[in-house]
Amino acid sequence: MEIKSNTNSLELLFKPRNVLIFEAKPKIAFFIEGFIRQGFDLEKLYLVSPKEDELLGIKCYKSIDDVPADTIDLLILSIRRELVVQNLKDILSKKKINYIHIFTAGTGESDEVGLKIERDLKEIIMSYPGTRSIGPNCMGLYCPRGKIAYYSSFPVEIGNISLIFQSGDLHSKMVKFSSRRYNLRFSKGVSIGNCIDIQVSELLQYFNDDDETDLVCVYFEGLSTLHENEGKRLLKAFKDTKKPILFMRGGRTERGQTAVLTHTGSMASKRKIWDAIFNQTTIIEIPPSLDELIDYAYLFSNYIKKFKKLSKKVIYPSGKRALVVLWSGGFGILATDTLTELGLELPLFEGEKLEKLKKIYPIKIGSLSNPFDMPWVTADKVFLEVCKVAIDDDIDLIIVETDAWRDLNDARFKGYYNNLHGIKKYAESLEKVFIIILHQYPSESRAIFHDKLVEDGFLVYPSIESAAKSFLNLYKYGQKREQLCGKIN
Amino acid sequence: MEIKSNTNSLELLFKPRNVLIFEAKPKIAFFIEGFIRQGFDLEKLYLVSPKEDELLGIKCYKSIDDVPADTIDLLILSIRRELVVQNLKDILSKKKINYIHIFTAGTGESDEVGLKIERDLKEIIMSYPGTRSIGPNCMGLYCPRGKIAYYSSFPVEIGNISLIFQSGDLHSKMVKFSSRRYNLRFSKGVSIGNCIDIQVSELLQYFNDDDETDLVCVYFEGLSTLHENEGKRLLKAFKDTKKPILFMRGGRTERGQTAVLTHTGSMASKRKIWDAIFNQTTIIEIPPSLDELIDYAYLFSNYIKKFKKLSKKVIYPSGKRALVVLWSGGFGILATDTLTELGLELPLFEGEKLEKLKKIYPIKIGSLSNPFDMPWVTADKVFLEVCKVAIDDDIDLIIVETDAWRDLNDARFKGYYNNLHGIKKYAESLEKVFIIILHQYPSESRAIFHDKLVEDGFLVYPSIESAAKSFLNLYKYGQKREQLCGKIN
Repeated sequence: MEIKSNTNSLELLFKPRNVLIFEAKPKIAFFIEGFIRQGFDLEKLYLVSPKEDELLGIKCYKSIDDVPADTIDLLILSIRRELVVQNLKDILSKKKINYIHIFTAGTGESDEVGLKIERDLKEIIMSYPGTRSIGPNCMGLYCPRGKIAYYSSFPVEIGNISLIFQSGDLHSKMVKFSSRRYNLRFSKGVSIGNCIDIQVSELLQYFNDDDETDLVCVYFEGLSTLHENEGKRLLKAFKDTKKPILFMRGGRTERGQTAVLTHTGSMASKRKIWDAIFNQTTIIEIPPSLDELIDYAYLFSNYIKKFKKLSKKVIYPSGKRALVVLWSGGFGILATDTLTELGLELPLFEGEKLEKLKKIYPIKIGSLSNPFDMPWVTADKVFLEVCKVAIDDDIDLIIVETDAWRDLNDARFKGYYNNLHGIKKYAESLEKVFIIILHQYPSESRAIFHDKLVEDGFLVYPSIESAAKSFLNLYKYGQKREQLCGKIN
Repeated sequence: MEIKSNTNSLELLFKPRNVLIFEAKPKIAFFIEGFIRQGFDLEKLYLVSPKEDELLGIKCYKSIDDVPADTIDLLILSIRRELVVQNLKDILSKKKINYIHIFTAGTGESDEVGLKIERDLKEIIMSYPGTRSIGPNCMGLYCPRGKIAYYSSFPVEIGNISLIFQSGDLHSKMVKFSSRRYNLRFSKGVSIGNCIDIQVSELLQYFNDDDETDLVCVYFEGLSTLHENEGKRLLKAFKDTKKPILFMRGGRTERGQTAVLTHTGSMASKRKIWDAIFNQTTIIEIPPSLDELIDYAYLFSNYIKKFKKLSKKVIYPSGKRALVVLWSGGFGILATDTLTELGLELPLFEGEKLEKLKKIYPIKIGSLSNPFDMPWVTADKVFLEVCKVAIDDDIDLIIVETDAWRDLNDARFKGYYNNLHGIKKYAESLEKVFIIILHQYPSESRAIFHDKLVEDGFLVYPSIESAAKSFLNLYKYGQKREQLCGKIN
């Protein structure tokens, strides 16, 4: 039997009723801080340590025998590699363990001794049918609904994104950077490590059926050498998925694969095979940039959420036509070049539509072309009216470039902000994507305005390029989905 | 006579001994605020306004006749287009004017009437041999040494970058964004507008001989229809230049050219011609992104400055070999993929060098490959020793990924920071580029650490991609320079 299955799906992995940390020590106090921050029931958090009496105010049991529970939903195994096999055997002989997070590193990614340890760990776990594990060499789990997180800096609020990462470093950066940059929120996250038991494919299948997940982001380094059929299972999971999967692959280049070998000890995978896989499935490949993954996840997550709120089926953009509304002129030419080079269209207004626009706004300064350049009327009603007529049916993406304001109580600001709300409402009624560009640099007024926009539900990107790339991938996903329509509900 | 010349080069344009604003009104008070902020001698700032008695505490003269100076170095002409020709005639008949900044918009970029106004303005100015002008339709000048700036938000500190921009919006954004993001500082800046007199080529020739300029950034939309030979002159300026020119062209795409026509009314220029020009000269073409221009200018400016400080000839990087030192593992694979895909090399350590490295750091956790992954020793001396041996002769670029610190008084932080200083010193002694990556998101401790790094002279980029692209362009410039060596001193 190469892959295990137990009946509880993976629910208890993310929402354990109790947790045991073996061994608890100050060096891994961050785990405990994470549980505290998320509000986990500390009476159900069992720490075992032969040396410590307590950690962060939580009592430590001297030995596994003292723990007052027979069944443990989640065991966090943190012990140096020389001792990990013997200790695991001991624990499993004494307690029923549903899930193990093997934190121990220096195994398969390290040397021959480590590889041997991995094989031994696998053998032990396989001999307990009810026990599953993630790792070794991984940071572990994050699930605000389950009140667990391995870092206290992770948000307690719940979101619709789930993560499967073969790097704890990138997993934690994904959560940290994206939650602070864009207020991204998560459903479930796994830093999965060397995958001696639970594989990426199994998590994908689980998230596919998970109502709490709308979007899955994956950082993948390679297939475990211990599971020969994982490649096939992964392809099946890709083909089965009903949800967007943003897939970032470490080791795209030959040189990058050299780096992979020293990191998780996975088999290097060939580019051509991957290209074929991406062509046959709805999977969106992400360039090797965490920033881009975060940019895309921001749009996908919010886009799907809006439909779900209205209990509607998600309809993806059917075209790539953009309307750009400027703060001032020079930027518009760069924006036009950037958007055109990336593959978007900027329709010009002609015929009846142009006449209609001119009737509303007989312009002298600025320009009624696309991009719009209406510097003197941003606060007036005519700004909103012009935008509405321009958006109409034949625009898929509206980008409004804005600037910071010194005084958010200013009457001109209020007029302008009402216009932004008006565009948002209109765009939403037509199921169009509406993005605001606020260029970033250290500035208090900029930060305040940014936070206000985000709080009020606007999508705010720092550059036209990041916004456009994110939109193009949303469009691409919709197109792929339609082409493979028969296979997707 | 198609182009004018006067004997005072363009020095007085940037360092006027006196300035006259006609007409002064509250709407353009920002000009006055700029002069005040830069510390311009306000007794030499003459405001003329038939309506106002004073503006921001500065007396207004009722008419041009009342101004107590016969010669004006810089006239800022701000009057609506219907009146601009007549008023300019009147002023020129009464005062000797060295330079005019024609702020008035709605001329050549606008309609036939505007084009006629431009032709008339040109004719008048041509008839006064000692009078030169920039504009119309431009924001004007910035020169901290000359104590002038059209916005009060521009830094008063002096730098080595000069700017020639055919967009006031982008010109001001360039100064504002770059000064706050990277502490960039400028020598001279012109928002040049529709160019009825002074052209881009003339400014390039001037900056080429200007000891206060090390680097020129240009935003170009097209050649003025009023100057048929400007294309040839521009090519000559490109060929003559001894300094790096970072050249961003608006209207690279056909669709972008449509946008150019409504913005500055320049002739559209063809991509092929430009490609040929960039191939024949040392000019570095910048993609249509202000962010990238700012990234590149940051590196070029600081790189050249370091050599100048030591009164040394600038030596550009001769290779593209990078050493990456990580904060932790997962990021290293993405970094390897990114750098490799962009065209950099990451040499692996072999033979004698590897033995030497292993002797210094017999590693168990982390990895002695490139990227380096030494999470547990960042604060120890061995970190610096390993880096030094690794850098040696065959590395051109050192990238250290870092993270923020909660407590900058912490002993571990001090050890780490000493190591960073050590790498910097060593890299500088070998004339290598050393860049720190600090990922950006809103966070106070991150902002404090960032400011400390910048203050202490480190180059700090927000992403490995922006750092790598900037380095590759510095390398490219050096290569181009060498190939065209005979023509450059």
